[in-house]
Formats: sequence, structure tokens, C-alpha cells
Amino acid sequence: MNIGIYGYGNLGRGVEDSIKRNPDMNLVAVFTRRNPDSLKIATENVPVVNASEITDWADKIDVLILCGGSATDLPEMTPELAKYFNVVDSYDNHSNIPVHFANVDKNATEHKKTALISCGWDPGMFSLNRLYASCILPDGADYTFWGKGVSQGHSDAIRRIEGVVDARQYTVPVEEAMDRVRKGENPEFTARDKHKRECFVVVEDGADKEKIEKEIVTMPAYFEPYDTTVHFITIDEMKKNHSELPHGGSVIRTGVTGKDDCHKQVIEYKLNLDSNPEFTGSVLVCFARAICRMAQRGDYGCKTAFDIAPVDLSATDRSELIAHML
Amino acid sequence: MNIGIYGYGNLGRGVEDSIKRNPDMNLVAVFTRRNPDSLKIATENVPVVNASEITDWADKIDVLILCGGSATDLPEMTPELAKYFNVVDSYDNHSNIPVHFANVDKNATEHKKTALISCGWDPGMFSLNRLYASCILPDGADYTFWGKGVSQGHSDAIRRIEGVVDARQYTVPVEEAMDRVRKGENPEFTARDKHKRECFVVVEDGADKEKIEKEIVTMPAYFEPYDTTVHFITIDEMKKNHSELPHGGSVIRTGVTGKDDCHKQVIEYKLNLDSNPEFTGSVLVCFARAICRMAQRGDYGCKTAFDIAPVDLSATDRSELIAHML
Repeated sequence: MNIGIYGYGNLGRGVEDSIKRNPDMNLVAVFTRRNPDSLKIATENVPVVNASEITDWADKIDVLILCGGSATDLPEMTPELAKYFNVVDSYDNHSNIPVHFANVDKNATEHKKTALISCGWDPGMFSLNRLYASCILPDGADYTFWGKGVSQGHSDAIRRIEGVVDARQYTVPVEEAMDRVRKGENPEFTARDKHKRECFVVVEDGADKEKIEKEIVTMPAYFEPYDTTVHFITIDEMKKNHSELPHGGSVIRTGVTGKDDCHKQVIEYKLNLDSNPEFTGSVLVCFARAICRMAQRGDYGCKTAFDIAPVDLSATDRSELIAHML
Repeated sequence: MNIGIYGYGNLGRGVEDSIKRNPDMNLVAVFTRRNPDSLKIATENVPVVNASEITDWADKIDVLILCGGSATDLPEMTPELAKYFNVVDSYDNHSNIPVHFANVDKNATEHKKTALISCGWDPGMFSLNRLYASCILPDGADYTFWGKGVSQGHSDAIRRIEGVVDARQYTVPVEEAMDRVRKGENPEFTARDKHKRECFVVVEDGADKEKIEKEIVTMPAYFEPYDTTVHFITIDEMKKNHSELPHGGSVIRTGVTGKDDCHKQVIEYKLNLDSNPEFTGSVLVCFARAICRMAQRGDYGCKTAFDIAPVDLSATDRSELIAHML
């Protein structure tokens, strides 16, 4: 299976790492909008190509994995590239997914390509677990907790404050809230009840820390609805203690069955990730395998994780899976 | 969707409860090998029919859910009934699944029916989670822990001992073992390291408790490979404290990603069930929905949970799922 990577940030590197771990996958090229000579990738003998030349590669790539950002890159990139390639993206702007889906579906269908959008862990594996659990337990409620992990969006929001040099924001689930859900109490929560936000901030010499802290904790939508803690640290502490991108979380569904709803049933899907982009990249790669197969079967158009039969994700033969994994 | 239930034990009652919770499902009939007049079911105005008359119902049922046992019932029942109905079963004899699959596939394909075997939570949801996790993290290891919960097979094994009136066996996962796995230590375990067995036993007056206890803890395969505790209790204590059928467990995969395998990634799927048969019944019912749709599309033959696109499990429209659950 010949794979291309479009975009070589943290996610692109995560995809590259995963391709090496899947013997049926072959990395054909990395595409970048930067100067290709400026990029040193981790795989030997694989060309780095300027994004402007990408259509020349249409015959050489089975699936192109798009590793751009959801804010501005993917809304343009995925529909456009779905004219030439089978594509996979990790578009994560939940409220805009239907529009993105329609744009990608139109072009993929017209050009007989297969596209998968919004794959990764949320959206992605968390979505799948919300779906499975809600189908099994229709009388129940869903809870999603994130963290402990670095939120790039929240870290960026702090970095935009005047006087801030660098920042790392951890989203932290409230353990007591998770415990109440796991007990099947079916609680109703505010945003503040479920998550805390912990910020590590490096500021310029002489910056007004009190003012910066106030600006963070009162920031609407990002921090105001949460209990937020701010720690001012040195640039050395930042490098030493906060250079990784861990994340994770839990999707929990609690439901009832039996006479007079007498039995509680709890389903939990939990991720504990040392590296968010490498895990997301790993999810994209196994779903790329399914997209390649669906395209070969002539099953074109835009798909989501909900449309993929799990057997198509695996490099192992179906009869082997039935014999040894069922 | 018109559903029939074949067999009305704990699992059949669990399926019946789930059908009531799914407004697109309609219970048409319950089939029994007992005298139908002896059976009082929980749904009003639904006939109880002798199993010998089942082929008369072929046109009235979209999917027949088979609630027999895996030891002797399902190996005969599922292939035979797949000649007349789309069927779903929970066959759980893991080592014999390929043979069962082949038998069901032959008849279902020949008679243009769709069959799903080995559905429930293990095999079923646990299998699905082993598959998803192994595809995402090819460099890793799988661990399945069961319990705390009642094992019917182990309870039955104790009941066959002379002098035993009733017995309930709980499979208990070893917490320390689970913690080591969750930390990503990748330990190798013996059976004894992972699970304990706790037995509650009612004996006849004057029975030799010491002899019975020895017979339990030394029973090959069932108890000898585990640390087993035996508690002798009264019939009243049994009724009061051990009349429910809770179960659950965890599927955990720990894998590595990144340069020199530097990052640990942990995926856990956990069930905490007050009622094992009602949960299993709930899984069967939502998969019956998918089987009905696949049959309507002409996708015949034997399937497993691995073959089912998650979207087909849901009563909710695909575009709604994309908008609100992804």
C-alpha cells in the first residue's frame, strides 16, 4: 500500500512513525508547502516534494494522509485533493463537520475517490465508542472526559497574550466527576464540574505576571468557564518538564436494563497516551488501509469511522482474525 | 424490524428487555422447546410458540435471535435455522469458532440469508476492541481481564460435585496485575497471576465440607490453575446475596510509538455490568439491526462483529450521527 504524507508537523511525523510499524505500508513521498530542502524526514530514501507538484503523484499513491490543521488547512485541502487521491484527514472542528463532509463527498464522488474525514481519537475512536455504546444501551447517557493532556488550542491562546514567551496548557479531568459517572449516578455537569485547566507560562523579563494571570483565567470560552491554575516557570523548566504532548481521556456510557431499570451497565473506553500526535497518526494509518480497500472495491465518496467495517483496518487475513481474535 | 427470540432463558429475557428499549424493533414471537403454555413472558400480546413450528414463521420475522447454549444447542441450531431466517447468535466456544463459522456460512450463503455468530461482549465487544487496538498499535500486547463476575460454567462445575446443592463462582481479576499492564510494563502472566476464583457453595446436611473444598480447588482447568477461595454458605445467604449475574472486565492494549519506541500508549475498554445476560442481549439486538440491513442489501453469508460497519448498528440516521456523534 503506497502512502503519501501531506504536511510534516507533529502529526505528519506521527504518521511516518506508524507507517514504519506496518509492513504492508510503504511511504512514497512527503509533501510540504515549505522549501523541501529545508526538511529532513526520519525515513531514508523517501523524497520530500513541494506541495505544488502533488498532482504529478496521483498514479503513485494509494492513499494520501493529510496532516494539516483544522482551522484553515483541511477545509480547503481535503476537498481539493479528493479530486486526485484517496484521502484521510483528522478534521476536528466538530460543529463544522457536516459542511466539511458535504464538500469532500461531492468531489470524491465525482472523481471516483474514497475519502475519510475526522479520524483520530476525538473525533475518531471516541466517536466510535460513543456510537457503539449508545446503540447497545439506548436508555443511558454519554460522558466524555479529556486529559490529563496538552491542549494545543489552549496553549496557543495563552501564547497570544502580550508578554508571554511560551505556554503549555493541560486539560485535567475532575476525578470525583469521573467516579460519580462510573458509579452510574447519571449526574448533570457544568463545564467546571468536569475539567480543570492547568497552565505553565514563560513570560518576558519584567512582564506583569498578575495582569497576565488575570487575562488567562478570565478569557471567555477558553478559561473562564473552568477552574484554572497558572504557574509561571522558566524557559529551562518548560523545555525540561513540558516538551512532550501527552493526552488521553475517557468515553463513558452508563445505561440501564432489566425490569424497572433495575440494572446499571457501564461501558468505558479509556486512552492514556504519551504522545497525542503519534497516536493520532497511528489511527490514521490503519484507517488508510481500509480506505485503500474500499476504493479498490469501488466504494467511493466521503466516509467517516462509522462507515468502516473493522475487518478492513487489519493487515491480518479475515479467517485468521476469526480464528484468533474473535 | 420484526424480531423473533429462540430460547427463553436468562439471555432470551435479556433480548426481550432490549427490544422494548428500541422503538424500531418489534418482538413477533418467542420460540421454546418447552411446553409453550408453561412459559409466561414479559411482553404482552406476543405468542409463545413451540420450536417445532418455527419454519411457519419464516415470512414474519426479519431476524431471529438464538438464545441457546454454546455447548450443544448453537452448533446444531444456528446452521439449521440459517436456512430459513437471518440469525444472530452468541456462540462463545472460542476454539471452535472457525468450524461453527463454516457450518453457518455454508447454509446462509446457499439460502440467501445473513447470519451473525459469536456476538455479545466476549466474543463480541471485547473482540472488536482487541481488533481496533491491535490495528492502531501493531507494536504492542493485548491483555484481557474478566470480572468481577459470575461464571456460569465454573458455577455448574461445582454443582456437579456430590453433596453440593447450589454454587456461585466469581471470577476476580488481580488488581495488581491490571495496574502493571496499565503502566505499560508489558508483563508476562500465568493464569494464576491474572485471575482469582471465589466460590460460594451450599452443601447438603452432613456433607464433608473439607472433601468438597479439596475437590473444587484441585479441579483441573477450572480451578487448579488459580488461587481459589471456597465459602460455605446457607441457601438463604445464596438467595439473598448471590442471585444476580454481574460481570465485566477489561481489554487493555499497551503499545509503543515514536523514535526508539520512546512513547507508551495505553488503550482500555472496560465493562462493569450489573447483569451479564441483559447486556449480552442488548448487544445482540443492536447487531440484529445491522444484520437486517445487510440482508436487505443482499449481503448474505456468515458475518462476525468484525464485518459490521458501526453505522448499521444505529437506529439514528447517518447524517444525524455525523452531525452529532462524530
